[in-house]
Amino acid sequence: MVTVDWAEGKVRFIDQTRLPEEEVCVETADYRVVEEAIRSLRIRGAPAIGVAAAFGVCLAVFDARISSVESLRTEFYDALNALAGTRPTAVNLFTALGRMRRTFESASPSTIRDIRARLLAEAHAIRQEDVDACAKIGKFGAALLLPGSTVLTHCNAGALATAGIGTALCVITTAADLGRIDRVFVDETRPRFQGARLTAWELVRHGIDTILITDSTSGLLLQQREISAVVVGADRIAANGDIANKIGTYPLAVLASRHQTPFYVAAPLSTVDLHTEDGRHIPIEERNPSEITHVAGKRIAAEGVRVFAPAFDITPHELITAIVTERGVLKPPFGPALADLFAGSRPAGPEQS
Amino acid sequence: MVTVDWAEGKVRFIDQTRLPEEEVCVETADYRVVEEAIRSLRIRGAPAIGVAAAFGVCLAVFDARISSVESLRTEFYDALNALAGTRPTAVNLFTALGRMRRTFESASPSTIRDIRARLLAEAHAIRQEDVDACAKIGKFGAALLLPGSTVLTHCNAGALATAGIGTALCVITTAADLGRIDRVFVDETRPRFQGARLTAWELVRHGIDTILITDSTSGLLLQQREISAVVVGADRIAANGDIANKIGTYPLAVLASRHQTPFYVAAPLSTVDLHTEDGRHIPIEERNPSEITHVAGKRIAAEGVRVFAPAFDITPHELITAIVTERGVLKPPFGPALADLFAGSRPAGPEQS
Repeated sequence: MVTVDWAEGKVRFIDQTRLPEEEVCVETADYRVVEEAIRSLRIRGAPAIGVAAAFGVCLAVFDARISSVESLRTEFYDALNALAGTRPTAVNLFTALGRMRRTFESASPSTIRDIRARLLAEAHAIRQEDVDACAKIGKFGAALLLPGSTVLTHCNAGALATAGIGTALCVITTAADLGRIDRVFVDETRPRFQGARLTAWELVRHGIDTILITDSTSGLLLQQREISAVVVGADRIAANGDIANKIGTYPLAVLASRHQTPFYVAAPLSTVDLHTEDGRHIPIEERNPSEITHVAGKRIAAEGVRVFAPAFDITPHELITAIVTERGVLKPPFGPALADLFAGSRPAGPEQS
Repeated sequence: MVTVDWAEGKVRFIDQTRLPEEEVCVETADYRVVEEAIRSLRIRGAPAIGVAAAFGVCLAVFDARISSVESLRTEFYDALNALAGTRPTAVNLFTALGRMRRTFESASPSTIRDIRARLLAEAHAIRQEDVDACAKIGKFGAALLLPGSTVLTHCNAGALATAGIGTALCVITTAADLGRIDRVFVDETRPRFQGARLTAWELVRHGIDTILITDSTSGLLLQQREISAVVVGADRIAANGDIANKIGTYPLAVLASRHQTPFYVAAPLSTVDLHTEDGRHIPIEERNPSEITHVAGKRIAAEGVRVFAPAFDITPHELITAIVTERGVLKPPFGPALADLFAGSRPAGPEQS
């Protein structure tokens, strides 16, 4: 299964809104299709969004109608801006687009052929770095889990959320390969059911004993000390270690803290945004009300209600036990740990945030 | 709208699984229909279940085929046992059935006509006490809310959950009538969406600004200090003030406590079970996995997952700011407060628990 990749001049991705019923693979040469796919969550997961956006930019500059560097430049920036406008919270999107922009600018002036080659190489590098990061995150994270662990996870930070084998879910599957996982509780993750649809699908395919719960059942499980550790991904990690992640992550962190259960965040360094001081400055996307009022095309909610549909919440750093990255496991205080990690290689700012 | 009542020899109830699309009123002379209705949540809400069960017992003893006190006795106990087996957590069911049993036993020996009359009178008394309790709970509870309040509630503790005008929701609607409510956030309440379907329906009918959220969005709202108070009902209150309520109540209480937000429980005294020492001894019902894996007849979850579907969780007394009853507002420590309330009128044990 390929979440998102480049295939002979096209972007190929699995339509995640069709899972688990159908594995539909989409191929497109139009960056606007990628743009729509990110917006509608056909492609989702912070790292996967970054990779998809990078390849989306490549589609724009590979357009056969481009006849001059000037028209390539126009196409490039149109695509860059369109893709940057898809979703506001995951910083990987802006990190990837920032890399593509810097690649473009350092390539100019040059030939169409050269600019295309450099941009595609950068997109492939972004993808490959994500693949490599996932594997390392899995290895570092699995070492945190003891044999006989029962793990709780939220939303989907699996292979479907990345170009590789996942972040939080890769920690779990790697630990399972080492024989350390008894079972995994998966929050269904309203409103889009990424836990029930995607994470459960990935874990069952991996042969792991998977138990689905509603999002608000986690409290009871943590209260009863059924959970060895909570492992989640992140859409953005601020400079002080505060994280944005799928709505419902913050309650989990509060409950884990109350019941002395380790709360681990697993994410590649492309998710870290040192330019955002703390969680209060992370923009939180609001989704369409119909994602809550309707399920499977059927209206559930009473008529006449308003809806508040934030897609993410902020978990403050003091509730996080450790952050697992491809460069190792960070322990509190996260501010200095993150600064150390980027020392000498402080990244350029994301394209927009 | 009548949630559940006695109507000319039949039990009449609104089928809550059909709301909000349709207001379907069911009339039946068969207690097994009432039994099934409680089991399938057509009739739901702790007080409403108690009233429905009491009337259900009446249906059994009014069966026209009964020709002797002995056959009436058989019918009575068959119905009592069947109704007691419907749902394990709400103690109102067992409290009501206990009252019906004691009425039956104190009536014997007597005539069929006399026993029927006494049982029906007791069922009507249970219903009327609930109606009266709701109104008083509304009055006492509304006094806790200040003008300009934004309230959060979970599941449905409204008119649909009682024979009267509700418990937690009646606190809110009464406060709204006093001009104290700016808006109400309603958790959708997975898996059966009682918040989205029932509470939202009741609040909108009441003309209150109602905002629907997923269950796990409450954390963000409480974190951002958007909520003046959380108000919920209860399915059982133990002797020490621990409560069982719809799954997801415990996380709300933990989050409210973390953010210094009052957490109020509103319930009639029929919900109090002094024979249950604390929350650890309250039996928690598990529901059918399909309530989580399927929505509106469509499978959402990946194949191959197991499901854990508790219908309730336990909120420990130390997280509760006050318990609103028809006899006034109880403050901690709840153990002595509850004992005082029942002093001299300590109730007989529930039928089963």
